[in-house]
Amino acid sequence: MIRRYSREISIGDIKVGGNAPITVQSMLNTKTTDVEGSLQQIADLKNAGCDLIRLAVPDEKSAEAFKVIADRCGLPLIADVHYSYKLAELAVKAGAKKLRMNPGNMATDGEHIKNLVAILNDYNVPVRIGVNGGSLDKQFKGMSEDDALVASALSTADTFEKFGFSNIIVAIKASNVLTMIESNRKLAKVCDYPLHLGVTEAGTLKSGLIKSSIGIGTLLEEGIGDTIRVSLSAPVVEEVYAGKAILRALGLRNSGVEVVSCPTCARTEIDVQGLAEEVERLTAHVTKPLKISVMGCPLNGIGEGEGSDLGIAGGKEKSVLLKNGEIYKTVPSEILMQEFMALLEQFI
Amino acid sequence: MIRRYSREISIGDIKVGGNAPITVQSMLNTKTTDVEGSLQQIADLKNAGCDLIRLAVPDEKSAEAFKVIADRCGLPLIADVHYSYKLAELAVKAGAKKLRMNPGNMATDGEHIKNLVAILNDYNVPVRIGVNGGSLDKQFKGMSEDDALVASALSTADTFEKFGFSNIIVAIKASNVLTMIESNRKLAKVCDYPLHLGVTEAGTLKSGLIKSSIGIGTLLEEGIGDTIRVSLSAPVVEEVYAGKAILRALGLRNSGVEVVSCPTCARTEIDVQGLAEEVERLTAHVTKPLKISVMGCPLNGIGEGEGSDLGIAGGKEKSVLLKNGEIYKTVPSEILMQEFMALLEQFI
Repeated sequence: MIRRYSREISIGDIKVGGNAPITVQSMLNTKTTDVEGSLQQIADLKNAGCDLIRLAVPDEKSAEAFKVIADRCGLPLIADVHYSYKLAELAVKAGAKKLRMNPGNMATDGEHIKNLVAILNDYNVPVRIGVNGGSLDKQFKGMSEDDALVASALSTADTFEKFGFSNIIVAIKASNVLTMIESNRKLAKVCDYPLHLGVTEAGTLKSGLIKSSIGIGTLLEEGIGDTIRVSLSAPVVEEVYAGKAILRALGLRNSGVEVVSCPTCARTEIDVQGLAEEVERLTAHVTKPLKISVMGCPLNGIGEGEGSDLGIAGGKEKSVLLKNGEIYKTVPSEILMQEFMALLEQFI
Repeated sequence: MIRRYSREISIGDIKVGGNAPITVQSMLNTKTTDVEGSLQQIADLKNAGCDLIRLAVPDEKSAEAFKVIADRCGLPLIADVHYSYKLAELAVKAGAKKLRMNPGNMATDGEHIKNLVAILNDYNVPVRIGVNGGSLDKQFKGMSEDDALVASALSTADTFEKFGFSNIIVAIKASNVLTMIESNRKLAKVCDYPLHLGVTEAGTLKSGLIKSSIGIGTLLEEGIGDTIRVSLSAPVVEEVYAGKAILRALGLRNSGVEVVSCPTCARTEIDVQGLAEEVERLTAHVTKPLKISVMGCPLNGIGEGEGSDLGIAGGKEKSVLLKNGEIYKTVPSEILMQEFMALLEQFI
């Protein structure tokens, strides 16, 4: 795939757009005023491999807490601000490395934006103009939803540009996957801002994974998108695991273990689901890019193993271990996992 | 999206291709010789909304069991046969309404296929030529993987066509999502066979949902694909739920409840995850197409509710119920679910 050209934007020491790797974002669901809880969740997200973390700043107390958290966590944080330019200013002064604003719920007149630009420039902070199907600026409601989302984002960007400010990332999110795909395609064609992708209000874990994977995946596969967030009504680390898995599936991130496992059928002689989950668990710490196949029979097991770094083709009594695409060893099935772990240790 | 033109194929009374709705498939993971267990799993899949079900026929005993199952289950069944034309013949005679064969592990010479065509014609049974990255016919291994998969499928189809048989569905599966997408794009351009889509060996539930959603979703969004299977190392009904959710996300199936729920943030005042999952559970029986939004705050909650049939915008003490996109009632949060269920009953 050929990646869409976008200008490079810096969020602290993290780059978004240009040739920078596509980053994975998440957002805390702690109260920002709960400093210890927020720091713990940031640590969890960082361990899960999250590149960028956003916090809501809904009031002045949260802006104060944001400063403490930003100072202590050692990561560039993004402030999510709605309704109030005063809060936006406080968030930037509190150490936000990016400001997210939604033109659907903030006045987008020149005066407000002019003042904001002065502060953003002082602190060298980019803005994400994040429009959302659920809170679309009323003035655009006459158009098709795709066009309205694009028009809202670009009209706000134009106001920033009018004041010489182009340190901008844009996001158009919608809970309808087709709207999200189509509006981002249109947006991608008419600007060079880095694009932040996400399906908003995607739902609970399973349906959220499906909608986010289609929406974000379809666009990334076309070369569109510079940073992503998988929104899930689920523990926040799931958003990060999912984001990384989407990038890995598209060959856009090459780290950690990919487990290829079969759906099992009448030919299956071992507990593939249990075994695959066990392999995932036992290799969660591995950062080296590895493809491991876990297959329930020799039929596709040997062939699939040929494309994998390590493979298991399980049988009732004897199982085959594969290494670098070749049969490595036939072992009694009851000591399969021991033998696999020994092979893994040796391999990494 | 504009759907790719494909010829219509009949599998018993189910149509695939042409203007037929895109069907969701799964495959039993019981032993086919376990007749009662297989019938139970078929009933579970049917209840989950599965359109087409496949069973492996790895030996003659399984072909006999297939006949009993096919007679009793009242659904058109697909037989999955490898290695043996003898088994293919037995499966068709046992009542298979479609035969799946893999050119990667069956001789594809004229004589074998000529004999098979005679039987398929006698019983009016179509064939799925299902090639697979893990078991690719060796003669095509010199080409790029995409091209080899396409060449293997088409070369076998050509042999069938040579004997006047065009009752053909084609599937190209790979565990690599990009290979699966690219090879199906190439295939879609050069034939009018209905295409069966799937990412093979997609992995455990979460990573499998992600890879399948990207692979299948990207192609469907381009108008490619007539029947789908989400392969998961997970309980088989999960494959059906996922398949239906992929189609729903792309506007290709319009039945049952879609729950839109927010990922929660510092503004959230209620347990969105619990509530959304409860709404999904309580509405699992609903077949009427319904969009229900479950949001943790009024910020996006009211706006998101505008695009939904029913909505909840939860607050700590009071919550808002929305109906047909408008505020319907403000209720104390402790009786929110009761009030919501009463509204749902009235609505459906």
